[in-house]
Amino acid sequence: MVEQAKRQLHLGAILEGVGADHHSWQDPDLPSDASIDINWYIEHARLAEQAKFDLVFIVDSPYITPDTAPHFLNRLEPLTLLSAVAATTSHIGLVGTLTTSYWEPYNVARQFGSLDQISRGRAGWNVVTTGLEGAARNYGREEHFDHKVRYARAREFVDVVQGLWDSYEDDAFPRDRATGTFLDKSKQHRLDHKGAHFSVAGPLALSRSKQGQPVIFQAGDSSEGRNLGAAIAEGTFAASQDFEAGRAYYADLKARAAALGRNPDLIKVLPGLVPTIAETDEEAQAIAAAAQGALDIGKLLTQVGRAFNYHDFSVYDLDAPFPDLSGVTLNSYKGQAERIIRVAAEEKLTLRQAAYRFGQWKSDFVGSPETIAAEIERWFVGRAADGFILRVTRPGDFALFRERVVPILQERGLFRTDYEGDTLRSHLGLPVPENRHSEAARQTQAIAAE
Amino acid sequence: MVEQAKRQLHLGAILEGVGADHHSWQDPDLPSDASIDINWYIEHARLAEQAKFDLVFIVDSPYITPDTAPHFLNRLEPLTLLSAVAATTSHIGLVGTLTTSYWEPYNVARQFGSLDQISRGRAGWNVVTTGLEGAARNYGREEHFDHKVRYARAREFVDVVQGLWDSYEDDAFPRDRATGTFLDKSKQHRLDHKGAHFSVAGPLALSRSKQGQPVIFQAGDSSEGRNLGAAIAEGTFAASQDFEAGRAYYADLKARAAALGRNPDLIKVLPGLVPTIAETDEEAQAIAAAAQGALDIGKLLTQVGRAFNYHDFSVYDLDAPFPDLSGVTLNSYKGQAERIIRVAAEEKLTLRQAAYRFGQWKSDFVGSPETIAAEIERWFVGRAADGFILRVTRPGDFALFRERVVPILQERGLFRTDYEGDTLRSHLGLPVPENRHSEAARQTQAIAAE
Repeated sequence: MVEQAKRQLHLGAILEGVGADHHSWQDPDLPSDASIDINWYIEHARLAEQAKFDLVFIVDSPYITPDTAPHFLNRLEPLTLLSAVAATTSHIGLVGTLTTSYWEPYNVARQFGSLDQISRGRAGWNVVTTGLEGAARNYGREEHFDHKVRYARAREFVDVVQGLWDSYEDDAFPRDRATGTFLDKSKQHRLDHKGAHFSVAGPLALSRSKQGQPVIFQAGDSSEGRNLGAAIAEGTFAASQDFEAGRAYYADLKARAAALGRNPDLIKVLPGLVPTIAETDEEAQAIAAAAQGALDIGKLLTQVGRAFNYHDFSVYDLDAPFPDLSGVTLNSYKGQAERIIRVAAEEKLTLRQAAYRFGQWKSDFVGSPETIAAEIERWFVGRAADGFILRVTRPGDFALFRERVVPILQERGLFRTDYEGDTLRSHLGLPVPENRHSEAARQTQAIAAE
Repeated sequence: MVEQAKRQLHLGAILEGVGADHHSWQDPDLPSDASIDINWYIEHARLAEQAKFDLVFIVDSPYITPDTAPHFLNRLEPLTLLSAVAATTSHIGLVGTLTTSYWEPYNVARQFGSLDQISRGRAGWNVVTTGLEGAARNYGREEHFDHKVRYARAREFVDVVQGLWDSYEDDAFPRDRATGTFLDKSKQHRLDHKGAHFSVAGPLALSRSKQGQPVIFQAGDSSEGRNLGAAIAEGTFAASQDFEAGRAYYADLKARAAALGRNPDLIKVLPGLVPTIAETDEEAQAIAAAAQGALDIGKLLTQVGRAFNYHDFSVYDLDAPFPDLSGVTLNSYKGQAERIIRVAAEEKLTLRQAAYRFGQWKSDFVGSPETIAAEIERWFVGRAADGFILRVTRPGDFALFRERVVPILQERGLFRTDYEGDTLRSHLGLPVPENRHSEAARQTQAIAAE
């Protein structure tokens, strides 16, 4: 029985250069080549580390069109990016997004396992299935996998990868020069997995890191997405739109996990947080309002269309009710698309209103540092979140968050004032997973089998 | 017409931790966890950079058994490893091995392209097709691809990857805040490749680096391997066993390239070099002899077996002639296996003799620093090599090479005393490839079509 430590707030920062929307890059404070400049990422990861953040987070998707948002058009790939950041930081967790739909499990196990060794136990993998159907044509397929198939493949894929990560027991390498024994061959294990979607023999040519295995993140919000998260996730990058939605998601995900026999405390729910911060609430509200006024409706429509596989919303009347999409197959970002349709119907939104509501990473936490900190505390105490992953669009907000909001959270005892460990698992309060081939695991299995 | 510069010697260093053989790890000067310690790689890359080497080189293969040599059993993955090294070095080239048999071209293009951006133009890709048949079972296949099929796939794979690397023209991103133009959409290009083995639409979400594209290396030595090298390689990691064999390979490869209409000077032939260096020739010879005496015949047989897909040579009489393998299919390291069979027959070797000859990375350059430098010059001037890639098994040899051999090569005007540029292409004297969609390339194509 692991003793229950005091519940702690967790903070992550998405690093995404010129931003995941169509507007942020025009901010003169943001270098316009940030998305392909490794020094920009290293600098921001170090800033997050100085502020004692749990992790940095890299989103990803393997498909673009000429209308894709600037950051996604031209950006570094997550594994290479995070390996460079690993070599230039010491404590902060490094979470990269990678799709289970268009990779080989053996290669994924090797690369995340290698990142975990390079960073000495700071790697995390955000498991996604790829929303955009066009990705299929970058990988020799005419059709994107069906939504249900994608999630079934994801579940099996993660199983295989975690099995490969346990290829060696922790004491498999005596490296004894006197006897000439480098490897204890009895402690290298093949996987010999043969499943519905993958067949992988193993073993993987890599031992486990200090944290045992990389931490699994997951971000899907559809019913299949939540079931996958409940089954495999140790952290979720949640899309909660407001406090009540956040509480409902939190309760639902943890209930699903408990129903599968998992300890729900070991899934950390981390909604995205887009802050607008200023000295006073009034100032912050004015900045947020001005940002709204500067938006281009065409770009917002493109962004809404992305959830529907780049459906073209420019053909509809902006001030008519949100269009009927019953003929559109939702095989892309399904959870997001379903939410847009549902909310638009419930709140009787016009297309224009829906574009402003869903076509941007709208700042949901607006105010002074005190207001932002109070709102974070409300979500945390109210069990709408175990922490947050910052998605900063205005560069100044990151500085204000680190310099003004974090100290308030620290004063209130919600957030660490220094790292207590140097692995991602230690930051998140997650145990090192037992190697499935260890003596302890074998005994547990034997007891279970009796 | 590019003006012909004076021919320059090139030097690379393989970084492979505890060594690609079964014996090196027992050297007390070699940390026994070097293969999974990123600091070991960073330290050695920096040492090579201080000595003005062109590049470091990472070998790879995605399959192991309990009998695999120590370094291969447990090692970092090349792309993640080199990205970490990229962030901690400034000039040295970074060449990683990756197989075209078990990856998706889109993912390979992204990761090497990203390494090229992270390193600001220092990436190289050593294209291999994977020798070991067991690799197939790590990737959902019962059978390894046939040797000819592997090479046909490799050719098309590289074509696709190079096409993806040209997705954006160099001036595709005006990033003009005043007009709100991030991308000039006319300068983003889809590939829309549909070939015998791959179908890839593109575009890739990554612009070209300072050196245009990563440098292509190749190491195959079979007839198919040489044809692939002649077609695509800008550098080859050659397996030349002695000076005459080196000259023959050099002439053959460059003739094959010329026959395909390529400038043979733009393929750099870089044989592997395993040095044993000491103050005097006698000392070096004694060290080499002692190393031979300490070898374990069982381990040598395992190593020879690897070229034949881990064929078990322990069942044969050691002092009988090299066994008849006419029943064994050569679908593994075919060029290497064919050479072993041929030489064993020509020289009437026993199995024991063949094991000593081919079961180790035997030191071929043995002597004082002056002797080593003279031998390098002989190969370079005699057109058996454009340079060498060091495969150091005894740690002290790397220090002696950098501190004692390199200065002699510099004094003789064979090797640079400082870097003249900071990309891998500039070190190797290779031009930046024209983007296929550039105005200049379009004009060339139009003239060719007339």
